[in-house]
Order: sequence, then structure tokens, then C-alpha cells
Amino acid sequence: MILSALLTSVGINLGLCFLFFTLYSILRKQPSFVTVYEPRRVAEEKSQQRSYFNLERLLPSPGWVGKAWRLSEEELLAMSGLDAVVFMRIFVFSLRVFTFAGIIGFFILLPINFTGDQLSIEFSDLPNKSLDSFSISNVNDGSNRLWIHFCAVYLFTAFVSYLLYVEYNYISSKRIACFYASKPQPHQFTILARSIPVSSNSSIPESVERFFTENHSSTYLSHNVVHRSSKLQGQLTDADKWHRRLLHLKATNHPRGKFGRDGLFGLFGRKVNLLDHYEKKLRDIEDNIRMEQSSLAGKEVPAAFVSFKSRYGAAVALHIQQGVNPTEWVTEPAPEPHDVHWHHFSASFIKRWIYKIVVVVACFVLTVLFLIPVFIVQGLTNLDQLETWFPFLSGILSITFVSQVITGYLPSLILQLFLRFVPPIMVWLSSMQGYTAFSQIEKSACVKLLWFTIWNIFFANVLSGSALYQVNVFLEPKQIPRVLAVAVPAQASFFITYVVTSGWTSTSSELFRLFPLICGFPKRKLSGKDDDDFEVPAIPFHKEIPKIVFFGLLGVTYFFLSPLILPFLLVYYCLGYIVYRNQLLDVYEPKFDTGGTFWPIVHSSTIFSLVLMHIIAIGIFGLKKLPLASSLIVPLPVLTLVFNDYCQKRFLPIFKAYPAECLIKKDRDDQNDPSMPEFFDKLVTAYRDPALMPINYSGSDRTPFSP
Amino acid sequence: MILSALLTSVGINLGLCFLFFTLYSILRKQPSFVTVYEPRRVAEEKSQQRSYFNLERLLPSPGWVGKAWRLSEEELLAMSGLDAVVFMRIFVFSLRVFTFAGIIGFFILLPINFTGDQLSIEFSDLPNKSLDSFSISNVNDGSNRLWIHFCAVYLFTAFVSYLLYVEYNYISSKRIACFYASKPQPHQFTILARSIPVSSNSSIPESVERFFTENHSSTYLSHNVVHRSSKLQGQLTDADKWHRRLLHLKATNHPRGKFGRDGLFGLFGRKVNLLDHYEKKLRDIEDNIRMEQSSLAGKEVPAAFVSFKSRYGAAVALHIQQGVNPTEWVTEPAPEPHDVHWHHFSASFIKRWIYKIVVVVACFVLTVLFLIPVFIVQGLTNLDQLETWFPFLSGILSITFVSQVITGYLPSLILQLFLRFVPPIMVWLSSMQGYTAFSQIEKSACVKLLWFTIWNIFFANVLSGSALYQVNVFLEPKQIPRVLAVAVPAQASFFITYVVTSGWTSTSSELFRLFPLICGFPKRKLSGKDDDDFEVPAIPFHKEIPKIVFFGLLGVTYFFLSPLILPFLLVYYCLGYIVYRNQLLDVYEPKFDTGGTFWPIVHSSTIFSLVLMHIIAIGIFGLKKLPLASSLIVPLPVLTLVFNDYCQKRFLPIFKAYPAECLIKKDRDDQNDPSMPEFFDKLVTAYRDPALMPINYSGSDRTPFSP
Repeated sequence: MILSALLTSVGINLGLCFLFFTLYSILRKQPSFVTVYEPRRVAEEKSQQRSYFNLERLLPSPGWVGKAWRLSEEELLAMSGLDAVVFMRIFVFSLRVFTFAGIIGFFILLPINFTGDQLSIEFSDLPNKSLDSFSISNVNDGSNRLWIHFCAVYLFTAFVSYLLYVEYNYISSKRIACFYASKPQPHQFTILARSIPVSSNSSIPESVERFFTENHSSTYLSHNVVHRSSKLQGQLTDADKWHRRLLHLKATNHPRGKFGRDGLFGLFGRKVNLLDHYEKKLRDIEDNIRMEQSSLAGKEVPAAFVSFKSRYGAAVALHIQQGVNPTEWVTEPAPEPHDVHWHHFSASFIKRWIYKIVVVVACFVLTVLFLIPVFIVQGLTNLDQLETWFPFLSGILSITFVSQVITGYLPSLILQLFLRFVPPIMVWLSSMQGYTAFSQIEKSACVKLLWFTIWNIFFANVLSGSALYQVNVFLEPKQIPRVLAVAVPAQASFFITYVVTSGWTSTSSELFRLFPLICGFPKRKLSGKDDDDFEVPAIPFHKEIPKIVFFGLLGVTYFFLSPLILPFLLVYYCLGYIVYRNQLLDVYEPKFDTGGTFWPIVHSSTIFSLVLMHIIAIGIFGLKKLPLASSLIVPLPVLTLVFNDYCQKRFLPIFKAYPAECLIKKDRDDQNDPSMPEFFDKLVTAYRDPALMPINYSGSDRTPFSP
Repeated sequence: MILSALLTSVGINLGLCFLFFTLYSILRKQPSFVTVYEPRRVAEEKSQQRSYFNLERLLPSPGWVGKAWRLSEEELLAMSGLDAVVFMRIFVFSLRVFTFAGIIGFFILLPINFTGDQLSIEFSDLPNKSLDSFSISNVNDGSNRLWIHFCAVYLFTAFVSYLLYVEYNYISSKRIACFYASKPQPHQFTILARSIPVSSNSSIPESVERFFTENHSSTYLSHNVVHRSSKLQGQLTDADKWHRRLLHLKATNHPRGKFGRDGLFGLFGRKVNLLDHYEKKLRDIEDNIRMEQSSLAGKEVPAAFVSFKSRYGAAVALHIQQGVNPTEWVTEPAPEPHDVHWHHFSASFIKRWIYKIVVVVACFVLTVLFLIPVFIVQGLTNLDQLETWFPFLSGILSITFVSQVITGYLPSLILQLFLRFVPPIMVWLSSMQGYTAFSQIEKSACVKLLWFTIWNIFFANVLSGSALYQVNVFLEPKQIPRVLAVAVPAQASFFITYVVTSGWTSTSSELFRLFPLICGFPKRKLSGKDDDDFEVPAIPFHKEIPKIVFFGLLGVTYFFLSPLILPFLLVYYCLGYIVYRNQLLDVYEPKFDTGGTFWPIVHSSTIFSLVLMHIIAIGIFGLKKLPLASSLIVPLPVLTLVFNDYCQKRFLPIFKAYPAECLIKKDRDDQNDPSMPEFFDKLVTAYRDPALMPINYSGSDRTPFSP
């Protein structure tokens, strides 16, 4: 790829970004889009709608940038919780890392690379220069200048490790501080007991009651046994639907709308009064639900939420193996009540264990299958191959602009489209694993998606060739550094355009909220409904974090290979920093609070990136005929892993559970709190399945999933 | 190796075994050897010495076999604790496995192997037949008979897995039963807190007291801070020595013995009255010790034994991370008071973590260095190479008997001698890791020694060649099955003789207690001392378990390759079963009780053996031109590992800690026990460093390390 192709790509994307930003600053001021761009504000001040019209509304303005910039961390914490703060820390961390890397890379490494003449490219004008002349491949073999790259690798690793330590320390102390500052919350006092052994002569609630009163007599408060309620939940959704239709019908005054047919699609069957028909239908469903609710007694699942009188009491029951058989009375921390995923409670210990194995296999299969679109994309970057496949295209492909668009832009766009389908699949797989909370599912999906991205975007693109060849490389560990050292620098230009197209565009379309905008538009127009029942979205951590972290991996691995990538990355992170702060301010509302437990994922993947960079460095210095440097790099991955081991020992336990000292201090503070008896009263019913709550559609609205 | 060489080796070893057994049955009846052969009995009934003489004493008798045979598991448990029972279960388990394997191997596989003609050995008489004609190598390539081997592998794996499950289940239920049956013991109520944070304004005892009274107010009982007492311990040993000399001097009535010189070796210096001299010396040391003891206040180590009022209270403090910083207030279960290793308490969290890494590296280096003697031994099995190295030996080596002894017996004897040095090194390395109990050190050394044995006896012998080549094999995982399939069957004869020489002889010399006998003899004769201060030995689990388990590995891997090994193994296990029962009855006394936690090591290594066998099977069937069978074996290791994962989830937690249910039940039982207040009084001082106890040599004997 030549420099001008890169510039074309950059130009297109800059244009797109600019377009999105302009459109955003106009549209966000239109009242009809307020649910798309400021749903949080709408939810908070529901009545206040700005409907006055003035010219200013049609002019783009950068005011939101300043607002997002001025947002302090404390404000963010108060508004969106620790998870959002941790999410923004990823940007801060990445900006620090790549500012340092950028200074070294751009002012030291890039000139060295450019002045080498290993690639013996004929001295053409700058725009037609291959991007490879900016990479380490251009430095002469055996040149002593490579020692500068060597030092850069060591220096960079030390700096990143220092930052990782500081950040882990900062976030773990924030986590503890947030815990201290938190109000009493049901999930702090509750654990989830699963695989409750069923004996023939006592029911599940009885044995839960007996077990905990016997073994935790001083702290046990109450329990809620989980029921098999998926059928009931289906009926509730139905009832909701009919109820909404009824309300809509009552609201419309058109007389023709009140009559319809009761058959298929409302087209066949008898003509009826729709109002009566809907009311009858709703009554029937309500009756059904009540009947179902009363007969649920036998449909108990061997799982129960057990609440305690103190946080420490819950922690004690959580951390000590309860039953003699470790596969019975399995305890885990309870999620927040509104975070509970009420399906999947029925699975026994063995079933869950088997599901887990099945999911691992499924992830593997998905990863392998995904190689197919990746190789198609790879075909696009090789124009010659494309012409061999589709000879009739050769005419079009000979146009410079078209070929530049195809090589520079199309591949990562197609990849991007395919990648859209992966997150829902990963979420579905994670939910199969038997997690009981949406937050856990999201965290698990985040890890899955991260590895999927690293494998399918990085390794698949780098190693290309046949799928079989890739697997073979990893069966010969000795060859890995050499193979990577050959393949990784060769793909530098692809990843630079990837940062530009995928990174920049995805960030600006995140701001513009292209997808919700398009989806919401026809819905709003067609239904003619009010915006009353819209839902404030939650930030999809499982999609965003892998993306951001993956760009970090690209930056770390290409830092010394092809420093040209670094300015583009810095632009990406700057954009992301502003855009996501804005979105957290206006759009996303936290749906759950994991207390910053996403950070260890970021930490581990950064360590992985560093070690990957070291392995490539070992290979590169070997290829570049500097075997001494190659051997001297070897201690670096070892030291990095040792450092990681220390960090995990030092900080990870804090993210797994709160220490006794904190729990006891919080409990003691609560003793003097006069609102505690009221809290405990609420706690007793906090974990009741919403599907089992009494319903009454005749009276008022019901929102079963709200906290 | 030919059959007659094997028979020579078997003959020699059978002779040795017979000799040892005969000598044993005579010597054990001699009163002067009673401390060697029945120290347990001597310790129990100290006064009763059988000094009468009759002819029966000089005749060998097999009575002890019957006695050992009749010993029931309950008796063994009562006498030697659960660890001894688990130790004997290894033999029972192995006997079951190899009886099953023996029936299949000897009656089905061996005839099939023998009737093949792949190796096209000229039909000579049976004694000169190569042992290879009994192995799978002799089956014709691509023969359908190999499917019988295939079925045998599946059947054997299923049977072993079933037995593993049954055994794990049995031992874990025994462990719980033993816990229920146990009397209150100090270590059940105590934890060890390490890395206690030191603040400038309070001493360690103060901060321990404050921390636990604050956070565990209802259950905290007392604490004992550990002191840096290694200097003191040295002085105590000195005092002991001088005290003993003094006693000896007082006992001898010879007037000349009472005078000596006070200089070097008692040869130079002034002539003094030894009695006065010794007493003065002892007094000096005693004064020193008292001074040291009183000045120990400042030499506190940031570690303390913290005792609780209930087992459950101790478990709660143990399982929940105490401090906000997980590297402070690190808790671990306390060992039994007499099991405490009073050194190594001083190391901080980071120090211990670094030591651990250093020890891993040291183990690796030791393993590599040990390859040198292994290759020398390998040279001996290749006579041709030996003749090239030492041409002058060719005359002797041409004698059939000599060459048979050298190939059949000498290699494993030399290996055996070298292996003698490894256990102490492993114990030393383990003690460096910062374990605080002898039992933990022994368990860690056991694991280290097991992997060392598997690597240095099995892999080093199998792969032979240069050390570099071996490491290379493991860097190309794809090649492993093929390389092992070529190399492992080729070493069958070596390992058969290894079982005979090392296994049989070590068992019979264990019975004969050759080493203690030789060492004890001159000591007893020279010192002329009474047997009063002899010590009853403890069974060295860390040496014995790896040995026994390694023979299991040989049996499992060679079961379908060369079934000829199985009868020799069965003889070994039968011998071991009787001999070790006898030794547990008469010789060894338990020094600590780990509650059967050695079993998980045996379980894991059996799983490893199975998977190793499967990998070899994949290679063998590939080599034998039966690719379908080779592919169909692949699911087997996966299934085995999944099975292992389940077992570890199902049983391992029970071996890590006792579940809450058991602890609470035991605590409740104790509430009605009238002896508990007395027990708690003892508990307060149970973990006081014996070096800090007041001493008084003028009065009576002191034995600082006795429980």
C-alpha cells in the first residue's frame, strides 16, 4: 500500500467523521431526536420538551465538546457508577501509553526506519512511497541502529508496566472507596445458593430454611426460592402487549379503528368490537397468569437467594464451602435484584459444568468458521487475486481511485459488518453458561469477544494463508517468533487503515447513533406513538471494551515495527475520550454496577499485548541478523509475566470480593443507621421473581422488570 | 535385551529379596536390633526387653507376614492415622488396576504380540528371544489385531477412571469421618496470619490483638507472635549436647575420663576437671539462652498464630481476605503445634513470592543437571558404546554373565544411587519456599520429586539422545505422539528390569532397613550408649509416594505396549503391600496428620499416566498404519481430562478445607464437652515457640520438639 492510498482512506474517514459530527450537533438540538441523543435527560425531566424553534437549532455548534470535556471523574462516578469511570480510564490509560509511544516512535524510530535502505525502493516522490519504508523492515540487516529499537522495546515495556500498576492501584482503591460510600444494597446482604440437595421428605424452601437457620443462626435473615417461571414470563409479555394495544386503542378516537376481525392478522374471522375483544383477551390472559402463579408451588428450582442480617454474614456463607459435597449448596454472590437473569436457574451443577464445556467448544467452532469472511476480506487487499477471481472487474479496478478505495477502505468495512453478528452470539453463548446476572453475562461475553477479536482480526489477518496453516504455526512453538516477525510487519498498512476506518468511523457513528436513529425513525413515524415508553439504553461494555482494547493491542505490537500507526491511534483515543464522555453524560444509563470488575480484563489483555510484542521482537531481531538483541529480549516477556503475577496477587482479590475489614466497618456504620429496619423489610422481598408479583392491568401500568 | 538376561536379573533380585527377607525374620527377633525393626513397640513398652535366648530366635519364620496381612484398615487408622491409610490405599488401588490390566495384558495382548512377525526375528529358542517379540512392535503393520489393543486401551481407561472415582470418594468420606471422630486439636482452632502490617506507633502483638478483637470479636481467643529464634535454637542444641555429655560423664565411673584438656579437640590447653568444665560451659550457655530469651521482645516476626473459640471462627478468618491489601494479613491454616517449622517465618509476602519463583527455576536447573548421570546409565545398556568408551573392558564384557549383569542390573542400580541425593535437595528447596510446617514441606517435596522422577527416569531414558533434543521434542507438540511411539516401546526391557531391580530390591531393603541398620550399628557399638534416646522414625512420604506412583505410570503406559511388565509390577505391589503394612505396624510412627491430603497427588499423576498412554497410543496406531484407530483414540484423552476436571470439582475442595457443615456440627458437639475450658487453656500456649520455653538443665531432661 502506498502513502497516497492511505491518505485517501484518511480523507474519506475524516470526511465521514466531520459529517457525523456536524449532523450530530444539528440533530441533537431537534426535539424529535431528543430520545435518540439525550434519552437520559428525557428520562430525568420527562415533561420538559424544548419545542420552541429558532435558527440556532439548525446550525452546528461544538458546545457539547466543552461540556463533555469539563465533566469531572467525580461527576461521572455519581452519574454513571464505577463501571463508567473504569471505562473512561481505559481511554486515559491508552492516551498516556500512546503519547509516550508516539513521542518515541515518531521522533526517534520513524526517522531511523525511513533513512534505511533495506527495501531498496526506487526513490519516488513521497505520495507514491510504500508505507513499508516507514517500518522496521526498511532498516538495514545487522545495522546497529536496531539497538535503538531494542532500547525502545525495553523502555516502552517498563513504562506500560508502571502505568498498569498505577492504574490497577487507583481503580482498586476507587472500588473500595465506592463500597465505603455506598448505601446498603440488597445484593450486599444476599448470596445465591444453588444445587440445593432435594430430599424426599422436605421441600426446597424447608431445607433452605433448616440449613441456614442451623448453620448461620446468628446472621440468617430470609430466603427466596427461585421458581421455574419462563412460561409465566411469556404470558406476562403477552399481557403487556395486549394491555398496550388496548391503551393505544382507547387513546385513538377514530371510530373505524375500533372494529376488526379476530382471525389471522386481523384479516379473517368475525367482525368484532376490538375494544371488547382486547379486553376479553387481556382478562383471559390475566386469569391464566393468576392460575399459573398459584400453581407454581411445585415448580421450585433448587436455587435460592438467601439474605443475611449483615454483609459480613453473607460473605462468610459465600466464602466457606457449605455442604460436605462441594457440588451441593454452591454459593455465589447475588447480583443486584434488577440485574437477575431469571432463566437458567434450573440447571444442576453437572448440567452447568457440561454447558460450560459445550460453550468452550462452540466458541472454538465459531472462531474457526469466522475465518471464511476474514479470508474474503484478505482477498480484497490483494487486487491481483481479486482480478483473478472476478476477471470482469479488471476494467474498474484499473481506475486509481476505485482501487484505492477497495484496498484502503472496503476490507475493514466488510469485516466490520461481519463483526456485527458476533456480539449477540457471544452473549447468547455466555447466557447458556448458566450465569444468573446480565452483568456476569456481559462480562463473560466481553472476554469471549476480546479473544475472538484478537484471534480473528489480528492473527487471522496476519497469518492469512489457509486456516490449517495457522493452527500448524501454533503446534510448533519454536517457529512462532519467526513466523510472526515475517507476517506482522507485512500487515502494517492494513492495520493502519483498520484504525482509521474501523476506529474513527465507529467512534463518530457511536456519537451519531446511526443505528438507533435509523431504527427509531420509522417506528416513531409509523406507530405515531409518544416517546413515553422508550427505554434509556445501557452502554454495551461487552462490545465496546474489546474494540478499544484491541486497538491498544495493535498500538503495542506495531509501536516499534511501524510507528506510523501511532498518530492515527492517538486521534482515535482522543475522539473516543470526548465522544464516550458525551454519550455517558447524555445517552447511556447504568443498568448494573459491577464495581469496576472490567478492569482486570483490560490489564490482562495489555500484558498479553506486551508479551506478543516481545515475541515478535525476538523474531524480528533474529531476522534482521542481530541475534544478540534477539536473545537479550527473552528475559523481557518472563519479567513481564512475573510482574503480571505480582499484580494479580496484589490487586485481583480486591476485585473478586470485598475484604473482611471493609465489610465489618460498613456493617458497624449501619448499626447506627435508623433506616436499617426498613431496609431489611425491603430486603426480604427484594429477590422475589417479578413474574410472581400480583398483577392488575385494570388498575395501573405495571413494569415487571424495573428495579 | 533377550529373555535370558531378564531372567538373570530376576534371579539376582529374587535371591536378594529372599536373602533380605530371611535375614529380616532372623534379625527382628534379636533384642539388639529391636530399635531398628520394632522401634514403635519399644517406644510404647520401653521397659520390656526380650533377652531370653532360645533356638527359635535363630530360625527364619514368616509369622510377621500373617500379622501384617491380618491388620485391618480400622486398626491401621487408629495406629498410624489417615495418611498411613491413604498410603496403603495406593497399593490397594494399584493392585486392582494391575490385576485387571494383567488379565487383559497377559491372556489377550501378549499372545497376539507374540504370534505377530513384524520384527522377523529368526526363530531361535525361547531364552534367546528378544523381549521385543512380546511387545506391540511385533504385531504386523496394519493388522486388524491392533483393534484389540485399541479396545484394551478404551476398556482400561474406563476401568481406571471408575476406580479413581471410587477411591477419591472413599478417601474423602474417610477424611470427613476422621474429622468427626477427632478430639479437639489446637490446629483446628488456629490460623496463621502472616505479613502483618507494621505501623510505627504500635508493636506487632498490639496490632494483631487490635485487628482480631475488632473484626472477630465474638470468636477471637488469643494469639502468639512468632519470634526470630534461630540463633536461640542453635544455642539450645548446644546446651542439649553439653548436657548429654555431662550426663554421660557422670554415668561413667572411670577416673581418667574425668580429666581432659579444654582446647581444640580436647587435645591442647590446660588440663581440667572435665565435670567442672562441662558444668561451667552448660551454665554459661544457659545464662546466654536466658538473656537471649528475655531480649527477644524486639525480634518479633510479622507473623502470628491466632486462636479462636471455635473451629468455624477460625475457618471464617481463614477463608475471607482480611485486610484491604491482599498481601497483608495473609491467613493460612495453622499446622499442628509439633509440626511447625520455626524458621522461615520472617519472609514477607514479596520475599516468599520471589523465593517461589527462584525455587521453580532451581528445580528446573536440577532436572537438567541430572540428565548427566542418566545418560551415563543409558550408556551402560548399550554395551557397544561402553566398549568404545573403555576399550580395555572388552575382554570382561564378552563374558555372558558379566554383560548380562551390566545390562540387566547395573544401570538401574547406579540410577538408584544418584536418586538418593535428590529427595534431600527437594526437601531443602521446598523449605526455602516459606512453608511453615514439616508436613507442607514434605507434600511439596513429594510433588517436586514425582515430576522429577517422571521427567528424569521416564522421559530422559525414553528420549535419550542429547538434552537439547529432548527439549526440542516438546517445542513441537505435533511430533510428540510419533516420537514417543517410537521411543517408548524401545525402552520396554529397561523398564522391566527397572521394576525388578529398583522396585523389588527397594521394597525388600525397606523391610530389612539396610541403611538404618548399617548406620545404627557402629553408633551403638562405639558410643556404648543405651537405646534410651533413639527416635521412632516417621515414614518419608515424600520419598516413597513418588516411587510407588512412578511404577504405576510405568504400568499404565506399558500396559498395551509390552504387557510383560505387568506380572513384575504385580509382584512389586504385593511385596509392597505386605512390607509397608508391616513397617507401619512396627517401625514408623506418624509425626503429623495431613488428613489424607496426599491422595490428590496420586489421583492427578494417574490421570497424567492415562493421558500419556493415550498420546503414545495415538502415535503407535499411526506408526502401525492404522490411522483410523489413531484418530479414534483422540477423544479419549479429552474425555479423561474432562473426567478429571469433574473429580477435582467434586472432591478436591474437601481436601483443601473442611466444609462449614462439618465445622459447625463439631463445634456444637464440643459445647457439651466438659473438658473444653481446659482445652482452651492449653490452646493459648500451644503455639509458643519451644525455644522460648524456660529451660532448666540442672533439674530434668528437656525435649523441646516433642508435642
